[in-house]
Amino acid sequence: MPATAEQIHAALDRYVAAFTHGDKAGYLALFAPDATVEDPVGAEVAAGSEAIAAFWDGVRAMTPTITLEVTGTPRVAAGEVAVNLRAIPELGDTKMAVDIIDVMAFDDDGRITSLRAFWDMAEMAPYEG
Amino acid sequence: MPATAEQIHAALDRYVAAFTHGDKAGYLALFAPDATVEDPVGAEVAAGSEAIAAFWDGVRAMTPTITLEVTGTPRVAAGEVAVNLRAIPELGDTKMAVDIIDVMAFDDDGRITSLRAFWDMAEMAPYEG
Repeated sequence: MPATAEQIHAALDRYVAAFTHGDKAGYLALFAPDATVEDPVGAEVAAGSEAIAAFWDGVRAMTPTITLEVTGTPRVAAGEVAVNLRAIPELGDTKMAVDIIDVMAFDDDGRITSLRAFWDMAEMAPYEG
Repeated sequence: MPATAEQIHAALDRYVAAFTHGDKAGYLALFAPDATVEDPVGAEVAAGSEAIAAFWDGVRAMTPTITLEVTGTPRVAAGEVAVNLRAIPELGDTKMAVDIIDVMAFDDDGRITSLRAFWDMAEMAPYEG
């Protein structure tokens, strides 16, 4: 039994909320223990809870405040999802924005087993609302 | 050396054109010999040129005319891309539409090595232009 669409939509809601509220524990709770995070695609893969916690810390060291928004209907298929997101990090006094497509796979408990984030640092630009 | 962004954008243009024009040879030429196609995600994976040709034939048997449009900026990362597409198949006298996110990986010659298409048949609806 793959994760249901309901489980996946609920996990996405929690993912966006945890990211936006800086809720590290809530973020880590979304992942299966042996999950992998590749963000952006091409970067070193963080494998397992400890590595994912270190990934979170690294991101937050650069930009403590990041708003994450779902910007398109998530495309759910067979226990996976591809979804359009916008990340709005605050770098110093400047709000930036970058568009992302995340691809996530889930286990049958609705926990993320794999997250791959497609985005390009070169496309980050000042936020225009 | 992963495929460059230029190679990936060019391959996407050719992919959309081949699909829309019913150009089977042009479509097949986009793939590496050992490429895989999983469309939609969760369906049987077509592995290799022969299986991908059979996949094409199966799709065209159901719907001979399909317009494919890129509907968002492709997100390129490390020789892969995630891209929003709309497929507009004609089923009998009815134009339908479904939104898709495709994830493709490329070899260093810019040929597709893996294509995974995230979409849900339940979201197919009459085309509204």
